[in-house]
Amino acid sequence: MTALTKLLSIVALPDPGAEVEVRRRLDQLAKPPGSLGRLEELAVRLAAISGVCPAPLRDPVIFTLAGDHGVVAQGVSAYPQIVTAQMVENFLRGGAAVNALARHAGARVVVADLGVAAPLPRHPDLRDRKIAPGTADMTRGPAMTRDQAVRAVEAGIGLVEAERARGADLIGTGEMGIGNTTAASALVVALTGAAVESVTGPGTGVDAAGRRRKVDAIRRALDVNQPDPADALDTLAKVGGFEIAGLVGVILAGAAYRVPVVLDGFIAGAAALTAVRLKPEARGALLAGHRSAEPGHARVLEALGLEPFLDLGMRLGEGTGAALCISLARAARAVLGEMATFKSAGVTDRADAGGSS
Amino acid sequence: MTALTKLLSIVALPDPGAEVEVRRRLDQLAKPPGSLGRLEELAVRLAAISGVCPAPLRDPVIFTLAGDHGVVAQGVSAYPQIVTAQMVENFLRGGAAVNALARHAGARVVVADLGVAAPLPRHPDLRDRKIAPGTADMTRGPAMTRDQAVRAVEAGIGLVEAERARGADLIGTGEMGIGNTTAASALVVALTGAAVESVTGPGTGVDAAGRRRKVDAIRRALDVNQPDPADALDTLAKVGGFEIAGLVGVILAGAAYRVPVVLDGFIAGAAALTAVRLKPEARGALLAGHRSAEPGHARVLEALGLEPFLDLGMRLGEGTGAALCISLARAARAVLGEMATFKSAGVTDRADAGGSS
Repeated sequence: MTALTKLLSIVALPDPGAEVEVRRRLDQLAKPPGSLGRLEELAVRLAAISGVCPAPLRDPVIFTLAGDHGVVAQGVSAYPQIVTAQMVENFLRGGAAVNALARHAGARVVVADLGVAAPLPRHPDLRDRKIAPGTADMTRGPAMTRDQAVRAVEAGIGLVEAERARGADLIGTGEMGIGNTTAASALVVALTGAAVESVTGPGTGVDAAGRRRKVDAIRRALDVNQPDPADALDTLAKVGGFEIAGLVGVILAGAAYRVPVVLDGFIAGAAALTAVRLKPEARGALLAGHRSAEPGHARVLEALGLEPFLDLGMRLGEGTGAALCISLARAARAVLGEMATFKSAGVTDRADAGGSS
Repeated sequence: MTALTKLLSIVALPDPGAEVEVRRRLDQLAKPPGSLGRLEELAVRLAAISGVCPAPLRDPVIFTLAGDHGVVAQGVSAYPQIVTAQMVENFLRGGAAVNALARHAGARVVVADLGVAAPLPRHPDLRDRKIAPGTADMTRGPAMTRDQAVRAVEAGIGLVEAERARGADLIGTGEMGIGNTTAASALVVALTGAAVESVTGPGTGVDAAGRRRKVDAIRRALDVNQPDPADALDTLAKVGGFEIAGLVGVILAGAAYRVPVVLDGFIAGAAALTAVRLKPEARGALLAGHRSAEPGHARVLEALGLEPFLDLGMRLGEGTGAALCISLARAARAVLGEMATFKSAGVTDRADAGGSS
């Protein structure tokens, strides 16, 4: 646990100095103060987190981590487990939704195998960080050992460290794992005390019977494993998953190295909640990219105190919502970097604005 | 009124055939059906309006129309009237928020003077369609004559016709006009019967006293002019503005020529409401780009039956909200054009999906 402990020790809060600077700059631009609403908030947050005004945004990277879940044996997904591996290959060929939306946003997608059940062909772009071929069925015992969970978190940290060395200056989170809304729901229930029924949704699209199987599986998993909510690593190990643990590492590394983290939807939110329980200051590095249609996401956002930038009824994961928000971050960057000021444009400021015109 | 009457006669409803085709295509893509939420809706609407699947989106154009308002004499704005002309020059230099956001979205900005009070220097990119140097003060009589209003609408139609000949395949609406939230509020009150107080907001940022002056000016304008809500052109002429009338033409031309129209905020919404009163079928061509922070916008959206794609608390106008939604439209286009299908990616579809895998 050395790498993780060391990383946790350097997580700090965002820079109030950069925040002041970006707010001052925004108010000099030739527009009524605050009139770009949350686009301005996005610019402010990115500057405060990165400590640079404006935040650079030259190389946004979406980390799409994949893993399988033993709990699929309980009939909790509309898709067979092999789809996780098939989608990893689709990511690597650039044919998935996250690839299309990352290209649109000018972001790279880094694909990593944290624990896919099926063997994956070697591919130059696939980061092989497989801890095990899928988690154990959490309805019968812990999904992972504590050691496996720590290794998955540290693998996520390592992925960020490697990409940061290549220039990554914005992180998006993504994931793929058949069954992972069940694991994420269990994690959120364990960490927040929310009712299982209120957090558990249709995921990729199970029917009412499938949803009842999910609720039942989560109840049994919590009963069998008795995760300790005061020990986030214990909870993560018992009812989480390899790709979720990997994302915990990605998020903590973003916070430690002051790289803003744009969260995707529900699974990313469960990982973020775990990360914030391990280190509350990590919250300062987080932006909620979008509001997922998965019902448990509202509870996660409430616990994190985050308001998403987009609300498009999406529920795909992969990093698709993060990709759209990265495009919005680029728009905020364009405003800050390209707009004329009242002074430079020769535009008269309002009389009560105190003389910047 | 010949050009307008002729155009109105060709406005028709969107193409259900293209809609069926785009829905079929979306459901073959390797993702749970509907999981991209409103991004899918955006792709569907663009295809249905343009009659092409996927809609082309090679040359989106934001029409930023400028005009001044005699009602500023009543102290309804936080900024002096000269700012309209100064901002037009800023648009032409590319230094305004709409320029930065249009570049981000890969859209062109077409700037037109429909009725700016101050003389503007000649500029190769400025479309000079000035009807008059600002409207008359609507608290003392009609803002425009009916003939002026028709000419402004027809100028908007002409702008779209010219850009369509150059390749424009998506329209964004934008505007600039100190005092135009007062005119737009009066128009919305007259057309919908809403209470003046509920529709009138801070605009670019007037204080409580300024807002009371706006409410009072609108009440007097409606009282003096007695616009006929059953006659949208009469209402537009009496309490609208040149740039608002121009946008009515832009919107009607989009609907007539099957070019999707992405509305910006409150002012664009008032123009859209007027256009739909002139020709109800025009509604089919409209997309609400974003939800403005201006309180009257909710009433406009309700009357139009449109749900905005973005909700970022913006209230700048210029076409900034339309620009962000055009970027989202490009994302929807990327999904439709670049994603692999279950079949092409070799991904197993869910068992009950009926065999596309």
